[in-house]
Amino acid sequence: MISILRIGHRIGRDKRITTHVALVARAFGADNIMIDTADAKIEDNIKSTCKRFGGNFKIDTGVNAKKTIKNWKGTTVHLTMYGEKLENSVKKINAKKDVLIIVGAEKVPPYVYEMADYNVSVGNQPHSEVAALAVFLDKFTDGKWTDKKFNGKIEILPCDKGKKVISKE
Amino acid sequence: MISILRIGHRIGRDKRITTHVALVARAFGADNIMIDTADAKIEDNIKSTCKRFGGNFKIDTGVNAKKTIKNWKGTTVHLTMYGEKLENSVKKINAKKDVLIIVGAEKVPPYVYEMADYNVSVGNQPHSEVAALAVFLDKFTDGKWTDKKFNGKIEILPCDKGKKVISKE
Repeated sequence: MISILRIGHRIGRDKRITTHVALVARAFGADNIMIDTADAKIEDNIKSTCKRFGGNFKIDTGVNAKKTIKNWKGTTVHLTMYGEKLENSVKKINAKKDVLIIVGAEKVPPYVYEMADYNVSVGNQPHSEVAALAVFLDKFTDGKWTDKKFNGKIEILPCDKGKKVISKE
Repeated sequence: MISILRIGHRIGRDKRITTHVALVARAFGADNIMIDTADAKIEDNIKSTCKRFGGNFKIDTGVNAKKTIKNWKGTTVHLTMYGEKLENSVKKINAKKDVLIIVGAEKVPPYVYEMADYNVSVGNQPHSEVAALAVFLDKFTDGKWTDKKFNGKIEILPCDKGKKVISKE
Protein backbone atom coordinates (compact mmCIF):
# COMPACT_ATOMS: atom_id res chain seq x y z
CA MET A 1 0.00 0.00 0.00
CA ILE A 2 1.25 3.46 -0.89
CA SER A 3 -0.25 6.40 1.01
CA ILE A 4 0.47 10.08 0.63
CA LEU A 5 0.37 12.60 3.47
CA ARG A 6 0.19 16.22 2.36
CA ILE A 7 1.15 18.60 5.17
CA GLY A 8 0.99 22.38 5.50
CA HIS A 9 -1.92 22.69 3.05
CA ARG A 10 -3.39 26.20 3.07
CA ILE A 11 -6.94 26.56 1.71
CA GLY A 12 -7.02 28.94 -1.24
CA ARG A 13 -3.30 29.47 -1.66
CA ASP A 14 -2.38 25.79 -2.11
CA LYS A 15 -5.59 24.69 -3.84
CA ARG A 16 -4.09 23.98 -7.23
CA ILE A 17 -0.72 22.61 -6.10
CA THR A 18 -2.39 20.23 -3.61
CA THR A 19 -4.86 19.16 -6.31
CA HIS A 20 -1.92 18.37 -8.61
CA VAL A 21 -0.23 16.43 -5.77
CA ALA A 22 -3.41 14.37 -5.31
CA LEU A 23 -3.85 13.72 -9.05
CA VAL A 24 -0.20 12.68 -9.37
CA ALA A 25 -0.62 10.36 -6.37
CA ARG A 26 -3.60 8.69 -8.08
CA ALA A 27 -2.06 8.50 -11.57
CA PHE A 28 1.33 7.21 -10.35
CA GLY A 29 -0.06 4.31 -8.34
CA ALA A 30 -0.68 5.52 -4.78
CA ASP A 31 -3.78 4.16 -2.98
CA ASN A 32 -4.83 7.27 -1.11
CA ILE A 33 -3.97 10.76 0.03
CA MET A 34 -4.45 12.35 3.43
CA ILE A 35 -4.36 16.14 3.73
CA ASP A 36 -3.82 17.83 7.08
CA THR A 37 -6.19 20.77 6.59
CA ALA A 38 -9.90 20.03 6.15
CA ASP A 39 -10.84 21.08 2.60
CA ALA A 40 -14.17 19.87 1.22
CA LYS A 41 -13.57 21.46 -2.20
CA ILE A 42 -10.43 19.45 -2.90
CA GLU A 43 -12.15 16.30 -1.65
CA ASP A 44 -15.06 16.84 -4.05
CA ASN A 45 -12.74 17.68 -6.91
CA ILE A 46 -10.62 14.51 -6.54
CA LYS A 47 -13.66 12.29 -5.91
CA SER A 48 -15.21 13.63 -9.10
CA THR A 49 -12.04 12.73 -11.07
CA CYS A 50 -12.08 9.22 -9.58
CA LYS A 51 -15.76 8.79 -10.46
CA ARG A 52 -15.10 9.69 -14.10
CA PHE A 53 -11.65 8.21 -14.66
CA GLY A 54 -11.92 5.14 -12.39
CA GLY A 55 -9.73 3.41 -9.86
CA ASN A 56 -10.06 3.05 -6.08
CA PHE A 57 -8.09 6.11 -4.99
CA LYS A 58 -9.26 7.60 -1.68
CA ILE A 59 -8.92 11.10 -0.25
CA ASP A 60 -9.31 12.33 3.33
CA THR A 61 -8.75 15.84 4.61
CA GLY A 62 -8.50 17.25 8.14
CA VAL A 63 -6.08 14.49 9.17
CA ASN A 64 -3.71 14.86 12.15
CA ALA A 65 -0.28 14.70 10.48
CA LYS A 66 1.84 13.98 13.56
CA LYS A 67 -0.42 11.16 14.75
CA THR A 68 -0.56 9.67 11.25
CA ILE A 69 3.25 9.52 11.05
CA LYS A 70 3.59 8.28 14.65
CA ASN A 71 1.03 5.48 14.24
CA TRP A 72 2.12 4.38 10.75
CA LYS A 73 2.80 0.63 10.64
CA GLY A 74 5.35 0.49 7.86
CA THR A 75 7.90 2.86 6.37
CA THR A 76 7.70 6.66 6.32
CA VAL A 77 9.42 8.65 3.58
CA HIS A 78 9.64 12.45 3.60
CA LEU A 79 10.33 14.10 0.23
CA THR A 80 12.53 17.17 0.70
CA MET A 81 15.20 19.00 -1.27
CA TYR A 82 17.43 18.58 1.81
CA GLY A 83 17.25 14.77 1.89
CA GLU A 84 19.45 11.90 0.78
CA LYS A 85 19.78 11.30 -2.95
CA LEU A 86 16.82 9.50 -4.51
CA GLU A 87 19.06 7.02 -6.37
CA ASN A 88 20.60 5.84 -3.09
CA SER A 89 17.49 5.99 -0.90
CA VAL A 90 15.03 4.25 -3.18
CA LYS A 91 16.99 0.97 -3.09
CA LYS A 92 16.91 0.90 0.72
CA ILE A 93 13.14 1.29 1.10
CA ASN A 94 11.38 -2.04 1.55
CA ALA A 95 8.61 -2.01 -1.06
CA LYS A 96 6.82 -4.91 0.64
CA LYS A 97 5.92 -2.79 3.67
CA ASP A 98 3.20 -0.14 3.57
CA VAL A 99 4.84 3.15 2.74
CA LEU A 100 3.70 6.62 3.80
CA ILE A 101 5.10 9.37 1.59
CA ILE A 102 5.08 12.79 3.24
CA VAL A 103 4.88 15.82 0.94
CA GLY A 104 5.23 19.25 2.49
CA ALA A 105 4.18 22.71 1.36
CA GLU A 106 6.50 25.67 1.88
CA LYS A 107 7.56 25.21 5.50
CA VAL A 108 7.88 21.76 7.02
CA PRO A 109 8.10 21.47 10.83
CA PRO A 110 11.33 19.90 12.17
CA TYR A 111 9.50 16.90 13.69
CA VAL A 112 8.85 15.57 10.16
CA TYR A 113 12.60 15.32 9.42
CA GLU A 114 13.09 13.61 12.78
CA MET A 115 10.21 11.16 12.62
CA ALA A 116 10.56 10.05 8.98
CA ASP A 117 12.49 6.83 8.38
CA TYR A 118 13.87 8.37 5.19
CA ASN A 119 14.33 11.97 4.10
CA VAL A 120 14.68 11.76 0.33
CA SER A 121 15.58 14.45 -2.19
CA VAL A 122 14.62 14.38 -5.86
CA GLY A 123 17.60 16.53 -6.78
CA ASN A 124 18.95 19.13 -4.33
CA GLN A 125 17.65 22.10 -6.33
CA PRO A 126 14.41 23.94 -5.53
CA HIS A 127 11.57 22.76 -7.78
CA SER A 128 8.19 21.29 -6.94
CA GLU A 129 6.58 18.78 -4.59
CA VAL A 130 4.36 17.75 -7.52
CA ALA A 131 7.41 16.79 -9.60
CA ALA A 132 9.19 15.21 -6.65
CA LEU A 133 6.25 12.94 -5.91
CA ALA A 134 5.88 11.87 -9.57
CA VAL A 135 9.57 11.08 -10.03
CA PHE A 136 9.77 9.31 -6.66
CA LEU A 137 6.73 7.11 -7.44
CA ASP A 138 8.08 6.38 -10.93
CA LYS A 139 11.36 5.08 -9.44
CA PHE A 140 9.80 3.44 -6.38
CA THR A 141 7.27 1.46 -8.45
CA ASP A 142 9.94 0.81 -11.08
CA GLY A 143 7.67 2.36 -13.71
CA LYS A 144 4.82 -0.08 -12.95
CA TRP A 145 2.33 2.79 -12.53
CA THR A 146 2.10 2.87 -16.34
CA ASP A 147 0.44 -0.58 -16.36
CA LYS A 148 -2.26 0.32 -13.84
CA LYS A 149 -5.83 -0.20 -15.09
CA PHE A 150 -8.41 2.31 -13.89
CA ASN A 151 -11.51 1.04 -15.77
CA GLY A 152 -13.10 4.47 -15.69
CA LYS A 153 -16.22 5.77 -17.44
CA ILE A 154 -13.81 7.88 -19.45
CA GLU A 155 -10.78 6.29 -21.03
CA ILE A 156 -8.14 8.11 -23.06
CA LEU A 157 -6.29 6.16 -25.72
CA PRO A 158 -2.75 7.09 -26.80
CA CYS A 159 -2.85 9.00 -30.10
CA ASP A 160 -0.24 10.84 -32.19
CA LYS A 161 -2.50 13.73 -33.25
CA GLY A 162 -5.71 14.98 -31.65
CA LYS A 163 -7.73 13.13 -29.00
CA LYS A 164 -9.11 9.60 -28.73
CA VAL A 165 -11.57 9.39 -25.85
CA ILE A 166 -13.87 6.47 -25.01
CA SER A 167 -16.79 7.60 -22.89
CA LYS A 168 -19.03 5.00 -21.24
CA GLU A 169 -21.18 7.63 -19.54
CA MET B 1 19.51 22.60 -26.20
CA ILE B 2 16.25 21.97 -24.36
CA SER B 3 13.69 24.78 -24.33
CA ILE B 4 10.30 24.87 -22.66
CA LEU B 5 7.29 26.75 -24.03
CA ARG B 6 4.51 27.32 -21.50
CA ILE B 7 1.24 28.21 -23.19
CA GLY B 8 -2.11 29.41 -21.85
CA HIS B 9 -0.56 31.00 -18.77
CA ARG B 10 -3.08 33.15 -16.87
CA ILE B 11 -1.64 35.76 -14.50
CA GLY B 12 -2.83 35.19 -10.96
CA ARG B 13 -4.60 31.88 -11.47
CA ASP B 14 -1.58 30.00 -12.90
CA LYS B 15 1.10 31.83 -10.93
CA ARG B 16 2.17 28.94 -8.75
CA ILE B 17 1.75 26.12 -11.29
CA THR B 18 3.74 28.04 -13.93
CA THR B 19 6.42 28.83 -11.33
CA HIS B 20 6.67 25.12 -10.56
CA VAL B 21 6.88 24.35 -14.30
CA ALA B 22 9.78 26.83 -14.62
CA LEU B 23 11.62 25.50 -11.56
CA VAL B 24 11.24 21.92 -12.81
CA ALA B 25 12.54 22.99 -16.23
CA ARG B 26 15.64 24.48 -14.57
CA ALA B 27 16.25 21.61 -12.11
CA PHE B 28 15.72 18.86 -14.69
CA GLY B 29 18.20 20.20 -17.22
CA ALA B 30 16.34 22.55 -19.60
CA ASP B 31 18.18 25.67 -20.79
CA ASN B 32 15.28 28.11 -20.78
CA ILE B 33 11.56 28.68 -20.55
CA MET B 34 9.35 30.91 -22.68
CA ILE B 35 5.92 31.86 -21.36
CA ASP B 36 3.23 33.20 -23.68
CA THR B 37 1.70 35.78 -21.34
CA ALA B 38 3.90 38.66 -20.17
CA ASP B 39 4.37 38.26 -16.41
CA ALA B 40 7.11 40.31 -14.74
CA LYS B 41 6.51 38.75 -11.32
CA ILE B 42 7.28 35.21 -12.49
CA GLU B 43 10.34 36.48 -14.38
CA ASP B 44 11.68 38.16 -11.23
CA ASN B 45 10.91 35.13 -9.11
CA ILE B 46 12.76 32.67 -11.36
CA LYS B 47 15.67 35.06 -11.95
CA SER B 48 16.04 35.39 -8.19
CA THR B 49 16.19 31.59 -7.81
CA CYS B 50 18.84 31.41 -10.55
CA LYS B 51 20.88 34.14 -8.88
CA ARG B 52 20.93 32.27 -5.58
CA PHE B 53 21.06 28.65 -6.75
CA GLY B 54 23.18 29.10 -9.89
CA GLY B 55 23.13 27.83 -13.44
CA ASN B 56 22.45 29.60 -16.73
CA PHE B 57 18.71 29.07 -16.98
CA LYS B 58 16.86 31.83 -18.84
CA ILE B 59 13.25 32.99 -18.73
CA ASP B 60 11.24 35.12 -21.16
CA THR B 61 7.58 36.01 -20.96
CA GLY B 62 5.22 37.60 -23.49
CA VAL B 63 6.40 35.25 -26.24
CA ASN B 64 4.28 34.49 -29.32
CA ALA B 65 3.62 30.77 -28.97
CA LYS B 66 2.52 30.02 -32.53
CA LYS B 67 5.50 31.82 -34.08
CA THR B 68 7.89 30.12 -31.65
CA ILE B 69 6.64 26.67 -32.67
CA LYS B 70 6.53 27.56 -36.36
CA ASN B 71 10.08 28.98 -36.44
CA TRP B 72 11.66 26.31 -34.24
CA LYS B 73 14.71 24.75 -35.93
CA GLY B 74 14.68 21.33 -34.34
CA THR B 75 12.09 19.03 -32.82
CA THR B 76 8.84 20.09 -31.13
CA VAL B 77 7.26 17.92 -28.46
CA HIS B 78 3.85 18.65 -26.94
CA LEU B 79 3.14 17.03 -23.57
CA THR B 80 -0.53 16.05 -23.33
CA MET B 81 -2.56 13.31 -21.65
CA TYR B 82 -3.96 12.56 -25.14
CA GLY B 83 -0.59 11.84 -26.73
CA GLU B 84 1.42 8.74 -27.62
CA LYS B 85 2.92 6.74 -24.79
CA LEU B 86 6.09 8.26 -23.34
CA GLU B 87 7.96 4.92 -23.41
CA ASN B 88 7.44 4.65 -27.18
CA SER B 89 7.85 8.33 -28.09
CA VAL B 90 10.98 9.13 -26.15
CA LYS B 91 13.08 6.66 -28.17
CA LYS B 92 12.04 8.30 -31.45
CA ILE B 93 13.03 11.86 -30.51
CA ASN B 94 16.49 12.81 -31.75
CA ALA B 95 18.30 14.15 -28.68
CA LYS B 96 21.01 15.72 -30.85
CA LYS B 97 18.58 18.28 -32.29
CA ASP B 98 17.34 21.25 -30.28
CA VAL B 99 14.07 20.27 -28.68
CA LEU B 100 11.16 22.53 -27.78
CA ILE B 101 8.86 21.05 -25.16
CA ILE B 102 5.39 22.58 -25.13
CA VAL B 103 3.50 22.51 -21.83
CA GLY B 104 -0.11 23.68 -21.85
CA ALA B 105 -2.37 24.96 -19.10
CA GLU B 106 -6.02 23.87 -18.99
CA LYS B 107 -7.08 24.34 -22.61
CA VAL B 108 -4.65 23.86 -25.46
CA PRO B 109 -5.60 25.19 -28.91
CA PRO B 110 -5.87 22.52 -31.68
CA TYR B 111 -2.98 24.06 -33.69
CA VAL B 112 -0.53 22.82 -31.03
CA TYR B 113 -1.53 19.18 -31.61
CA GLU B 114 -1.21 19.74 -35.36
CA MET B 115 2.09 21.61 -35.40
CA ALA B 116 4.00 19.52 -32.83
CA ASP B 117 6.26 16.80 -34.23
CA TYR B 118 5.35 14.62 -31.26
CA ASN B 119 2.33 14.64 -28.96
CA VAL B 120 3.50 12.70 -25.91
CA SER B 121 1.55 11.52 -22.89
CA VAL B 122 3.07 10.80 -19.50
CA GLY B 123 0.31 8.33 -18.69
CA ASN B 124 -3.22 8.79 -20.07
CA GLN B 125 -4.73 9.82 -16.75
CA PRO B 126 -5.34 13.43 -15.69
CA HIS B 127 -2.56 14.67 -13.41
CA SER B 128 -0.22 17.65 -13.76
CA GLU B 129 1.90 19.44 -16.34
CA VAL B 130 4.51 19.91 -13.60
CA ALA B 131 4.79 16.14 -13.11
CA ALA B 132 4.62 15.43 -16.84
CA LEU B 133 7.54 17.78 -17.55
CA ALA B 134 9.68 16.31 -14.77
CA VAL B 135 9.10 12.69 -15.78
CA PHE B 136 9.59 13.51 -19.47
CA LEU B 137 12.90 15.31 -18.82
CA ASP B 138 14.06 12.49 -16.55
CA LYS B 139 13.50 9.94 -19.33
CA PHE B 140 14.63 12.18 -22.18
CA THR B 141 17.95 13.06 -20.49
CA ASP B 142 18.29 9.45 -19.30
CA GLY B 143 18.58 10.71 -15.73
CA LYS B 144 21.56 12.94 -16.56
CA TRP B 145 19.87 15.99 -14.98
CA THR B 146 21.00 14.62 -11.59
CA ASP B 147 24.67 15.25 -12.54
CA LYS B 148 24.16 18.89 -13.53
CA LYS B 149 26.35 21.36 -11.62
CA PHE B 150 24.77 24.73 -10.84
CA ASN B 151 27.63 26.35 -8.84
CA GLY B 152 25.21 28.61 -6.99
CA LYS B 153 25.79 30.89 -4.03
CA ILE B 154 23.60 28.46 -2.13
CA GLU B 155 24.29 24.76 -2.33
CA ILE B 156 22.30 22.06 -0.60
CA LEU B 157 24.09 18.85 0.32
CA PRO B 158 22.24 15.52 0.60
CA CYS B 159 21.56 14.68 4.25
CA ASP B 160 19.59 11.95 6.06
CA LYS B 161 18.23 14.19 8.85
CA GLY B 162 17.90 17.97 8.96
CA LYS B 163 19.50 20.40 6.49
CA LYS B 164 23.03 20.87 5.19
CA VAL B 165 23.30 24.17 3.36
CA ILE B 166 26.48 25.85 2.08
CA SER B 167 26.01 29.57 1.59
CA LYS B 168 28.65 31.59 -0.26
CA GLU B 169 26.66 34.81 0.01
